[in-house]
Amino acid sequence: MSGGINRQIRLAARPSGLPGDGTWRLTEENVPKPSDGAVLVAVDHISITPAMRTWLRDTDSYVPPVQVGDVMRAQGTGKVVESRDPRHAVGDSVVGWFGVQTHATARGDAVTTIDTKVAPASTWLGLLGNTGLTAYFGLFFVAAAKPGETVLVSGAAGAVGSTVAQLAKQQGCYVVGIAGGPQKCAWLLDELGLDGAVDYKAEGFAAALKAAASKGFDVFFDNVGGTVLDAGLARIGARARIVICGGISSYNSTDLPPGPANYMSLVVKSASMTGFLLADFADHFDLARRHLAAALTDGTLTAREHLIHGDIAMFPEALGMLFAGANTGKLVLSVA
Amino acid sequence: MSGGINRQIRLAARPSGLPGDGTWRLTEENVPKPSDGAVLVAVDHISITPAMRTWLRDTDSYVPPVQVGDVMRAQGTGKVVESRDPRHAVGDSVVGWFGVQTHATARGDAVTTIDTKVAPASTWLGLLGNTGLTAYFGLFFVAAAKPGETVLVSGAAGAVGSTVAQLAKQQGCYVVGIAGGPQKCAWLLDELGLDGAVDYKAEGFAAALKAAASKGFDVFFDNVGGTVLDAGLARIGARARIVICGGISSYNSTDLPPGPANYMSLVVKSASMTGFLLADFADHFDLARRHLAAALTDGTLTAREHLIHGDIAMFPEALGMLFAGANTGKLVLSVA
Repeated sequence: MSGGINRQIRLAARPSGLPGDGTWRLTEENVPKPSDGAVLVAVDHISITPAMRTWLRDTDSYVPPVQVGDVMRAQGTGKVVESRDPRHAVGDSVVGWFGVQTHATARGDAVTTIDTKVAPASTWLGLLGNTGLTAYFGLFFVAAAKPGETVLVSGAAGAVGSTVAQLAKQQGCYVVGIAGGPQKCAWLLDELGLDGAVDYKAEGFAAALKAAASKGFDVFFDNVGGTVLDAGLARIGARARIVICGGISSYNSTDLPPGPANYMSLVVKSASMTGFLLADFADHFDLARRHLAAALTDGTLTAREHLIHGDIAMFPEALGMLFAGANTGKLVLSVA
Repeated sequence: MSGGINRQIRLAARPSGLPGDGTWRLTEENVPKPSDGAVLVAVDHISITPAMRTWLRDTDSYVPPVQVGDVMRAQGTGKVVESRDPRHAVGDSVVGWFGVQTHATARGDAVTTIDTKVAPASTWLGLLGNTGLTAYFGLFFVAAAKPGETVLVSGAAGAVGSTVAQLAKQQGCYVVGIAGGPQKCAWLLDELGLDGAVDYKAEGFAAALKAAASKGFDVFFDNVGGTVLDAGLARIGARARIVICGGISSYNSTDLPPGPANYMSLVVKSASMTGFLLADFADHFDLARRHLAAALTDGTLTAREHLIHGDIAMFPEALGMLFAGANTGKLVLSVA
């Protein structure tokens, strides 16, 4: 099958601060034909992630920036509707970097078949996708969290954070989450069973964080940056490992905000602060997916997802929700 | 021998910013008698270090703060003049935490005999003391610098920095030093034989740092903090290890200055930033001292020392020189 219209969200102009009305442009063109060795995919789910904001800056990073005029970069799931690669059959469910559009062609070796009997497609963008993998490698490979240790997670109601928090509980750690607002904090305690939850928007945040683990934290998994990172740095224990996974608090800043003033805690606590890219662990993805899928199946891990059902044109709104902290769990735009 | 007058520098008031006239008080009292198990030491050399400034703040750190009224904390060397510990004989040269004073009593197990035939007493406060040990463990144990790697050292004309730079050259690394002013930079190139030297006070510092290692640095040993740390963060390579050894640039600030804004380089470069305390490596001190003494003896390591000869009353001036960057190499007050 081919033909029809492909609806796309393209970058119209680089935003200054939060992406706004002028940032995006909806375009339509004919659905493309896959070349030899490629497949055509009808996209059904699009992953909405904080990293998207970093791709809009005109600076080299771990991936090149999205160029003005390009279809916005995004990971998604979909069904193969035409295949010129023998490894992929029409009707297969796949995940890949399809962009924010209803149809995409991709080389056969750049898409991965997913089993929607194990989990629905959206979960392959979340717990069984980059979200879950990021949590797994950051917690176990980078921080090497051990049973009995105290673990602090910021952005704990977010996609990666909520997975880290649950994996750390599984591992036998004492887990405290930082989130914004009483509802998210209640969810961390009641639904995820964390040992503590601290509201960074509330008065007395620093004191509450101190009370949550009086001896300090062995591991701090930071998704937020800014004042939250600084508050955590002030509360690390000896030989703590801080994992820098993201810095959503600064992604929309026009100027680079000040860094963590408390970084000298690293010296007095003989501690480390380490960043990582998921690609560093590509050799271990299968191992991690088996662990995550098993935990999902036996119910020890909850894949909280925040699905927005609608048209591709809702992408700007969905991205805005992410930066407003309006989601709990993995944010996915469903365009099925 | 005992009796006589002990001259001491005591903390008169906690400084705000740079220590000044009101910070110190010179006192005199009778030379104390050592109790059972202790020794009396006539101090001959006092180590002047950036960390001294951090001990003046009324906040808990890796050691308790010096209290107002106390003799200023300092490491020093001296000769045993009276011993009530069978392990130490009168006339022995020793190193210990004797404070800024002409005479000190100390428990016998808290002082270490030094061999002044291997190196003069001042060198036991520098290359064969905490300075050399800090450089050794930071470079080899924390950063794990390997032959062929590019190493950036800030404060490279300072005590620890100049030792790190030389050890890294020994190890077969490509070594670039950051220092303040053309004279220090010339010394790094001409005397220490570094591969590059960049003046952080000069125009075009960032561009010069980029030109000094176009592919970025594998290791960054930072003694300075502030804008120098930020500039280095912008120039790290993939899987870089940053060692945070000190932050002299901020030690006299009344407010905690902003942290390193470029810390997200840790993520995009899969890099780490690690602090350490020398005490973490106490089990390996003998190993390191043998390495350092051998390199000193065979001439592959130069122990540049900046000795100030004079009276104990010159301590405030000596400390001021350190924060003005007026020293090249290890700063020692000789009161022999």
